[in-house]
Amino acid sequence: MPRGRTTIADIASEVGVSVPTVSKVLNGRTDVAAATRTRVEEALERHGYRKPVATRTAAATRPGVRLLDLVFHAADNLWAQEIIKGVEQVCGPERVGVVLSELGGSHRPPQEWIDDVMARRPLGVLLVLSGLDAKQRHQLASRNIPFAVVDTQGEPPSGVPTVGSNNWNGGLSGTRHLLALGHRRIAAISGPDDMLCSRARVDGFRSAHDEVGVPWDPDLIRWGAFDAESGYRHGREVLDRPDRPTAVFAGSDYQALGVLRAARELGLRVPEDISVVGYDDLPISQWLDPALTTVHQPLREMASLATRMLLTLAAGGQPPSMQVELVTELVIRSSTAPPPATTTTGAGR
Amino acid sequence: MPRGRTTIADIASEVGVSVPTVSKVLNGRTDVAAATRTRVEEALERHGYRKPVATRTAAATRPGVRLLDLVFHAADNLWAQEIIKGVEQVCGPERVGVVLSELGGSHRPPQEWIDDVMARRPLGVLLVLSGLDAKQRHQLASRNIPFAVVDTQGEPPSGVPTVGSNNWNGGLSGTRHLLALGHRRIAAISGPDDMLCSRARVDGFRSAHDEVGVPWDPDLIRWGAFDAESGYRHGREVLDRPDRPTAVFAGSDYQALGVLRAARELGLRVPEDISVVGYDDLPISQWLDPALTTVHQPLREMASLATRMLLTLAAGGQPPSMQVELVTELVIRSSTAPPPATTTTGAGR
Repeated sequence: MPRGRTTIADIASEVGVSVPTVSKVLNGRTDVAAATRTRVEEALERHGYRKPVATRTAAATRPGVRLLDLVFHAADNLWAQEIIKGVEQVCGPERVGVVLSELGGSHRPPQEWIDDVMARRPLGVLLVLSGLDAKQRHQLASRNIPFAVVDTQGEPPSGVPTVGSNNWNGGLSGTRHLLALGHRRIAAISGPDDMLCSRARVDGFRSAHDEVGVPWDPDLIRWGAFDAESGYRHGREVLDRPDRPTAVFAGSDYQALGVLRAARELGLRVPEDISVVGYDDLPISQWLDPALTTVHQPLREMASLATRMLLTLAAGGQPPSMQVELVTELVIRSSTAPPPATTTTGAGR
Repeated sequence: MPRGRTTIADIASEVGVSVPTVSKVLNGRTDVAAATRTRVEEALERHGYRKPVATRTAAATRPGVRLLDLVFHAADNLWAQEIIKGVEQVCGPERVGVVLSELGGSHRPPQEWIDDVMARRPLGVLLVLSGLDAKQRHQLASRNIPFAVVDTQGEPPSGVPTVGSNNWNGGLSGTRHLLALGHRRIAAISGPDDMLCSRARVDGFRSAHDEVGVPWDPDLIRWGAFDAESGYRHGREVLDRPDRPTAVFAGSDYQALGVLRAARELGLRVPEDISVVGYDDLPISQWLDPALTTVHQPLREMASLATRMLLTLAAGGQPPSMQVELVTELVIRSSTAPPPATTTTGAGR
């Protein structure tokens, strides 16, 4: 049987239940015995069943209820706020209600969440820095609920609509700026080393060094969380060394905030003694002291674009492109300057 | 006819439509002619109709779909992020989907928004720094959709469940701290003068002065927006005067950020030359330079409590208290110190 041509009746007959029972499972109804539900789900997955778009629309017993699910692995910072703003900018005028979920730091939603999504039948699901496993992807696909990923990690699952930004270029441009100012000993504090976004930025950092033949010190490349605390901890370590760097490239504006504090505590002035580059260009970064030189990620635009892709898919259309990467851009403010005239390690050229 | 006892049949008969038509209007269905809908709405309002709780539950054709609407007048800063976090902390474990709306700066939702809410039938509606007009309140009440207000403005509409915080006390404690340090000439930069929260804080500011017999200068009380830009603009003005104050009490941490920049640009050190007190105690305020002395508002707790009140009402229960005010608390960090030894206006005692 060709994939995708199976009907609800086929599934019902194979599992030995009624057509309405299969329909209930598809519509996220909870009044089906767990064992039956599992057998139906398995049959749906086996056949690669997909609900026709027209059926889905007709089956919507809730005219006027248009929802979009937005899922964060964690939503407690200004980064998340930018994403929310970008989604609202599209959904507000379209009168689509945005249902916000937070996974408490996990990068995979629990099954209860998928169950709830199937029950509320949103137009689509937008995942931020999180993903679905194969079973979850199939469950949404079989209900014809499209999903997309705002993925600054840079690893789009194949076939999933994704909007990201060019992390490698961001790492490259931030580091080039420091090298051009004359820095020859630069630390990189990045996010977790199992996130592709962190690794891409650090690779850009290394490439910028290689371009101009300046060696980088593996001891000065640090992996951590993207928060201020992590920036502070690594900042204290690298800036307290006798052979301390003259510049720090941070993986986020929050990490840069932590580095700024570490520098203050060690009596180092920014940018006179230490230059600091952030990443993200959150709105608050221009208000910091010193105003932060940082790599701008177009977070609102990324979220708006991903939302539009979802609404297009929900309406049965096809977005012009399924995997988009927006450009990052260096914003130069006051936290970077040439290195101090006499450094212990200034013999780079 | 006693209020609240009218049945759908009474309404149908009075308007001259069928019972299912009234039911459709009540359930937010869009397939009813606009004129008919208006007549039904008017009859519902005239009779003070309220859908019985039991009916509402039974009528829910969407088992497993539990939503709560969260409405911001603007949601683009860390203050909103704290509220979202507080709501998610309650709704996540309860498997209630949070539908986020932003009114683009308006303090009243448009009618389309109310229509969408009636269609999606959430367990309740939580309004943040925004309100409903009498007609909108009635429309939700007649559908038995409870609503609550997180209201730092301090003006709860009568009978509406509200969680706020004590703004007057916040103004008092922040100012007392500055007076106790020896400041005798203090500026207050607050929010809009038509918001009760701003006015209550300024009244607390004045009362703290009166307590110790220190006069306050009306020229140093400034009203503005709660953002950094407004803090910066007013900060430049008051700090550039020949008779400049030795301390500034800001109406928000964002305003304090703007005052810090104004001080820097004028060559004034904080806290050596100028002390600055913020308001809110956003998580980022401890990372600023200098770490901000500020009045803590328990925003997450306020949002969590209001959410719990809504879920209690939705379940047919009654919250222990309908109008709650949580306490504010001064957090002393590094942006405040005694005034410089020689000031032009230090003759306060």
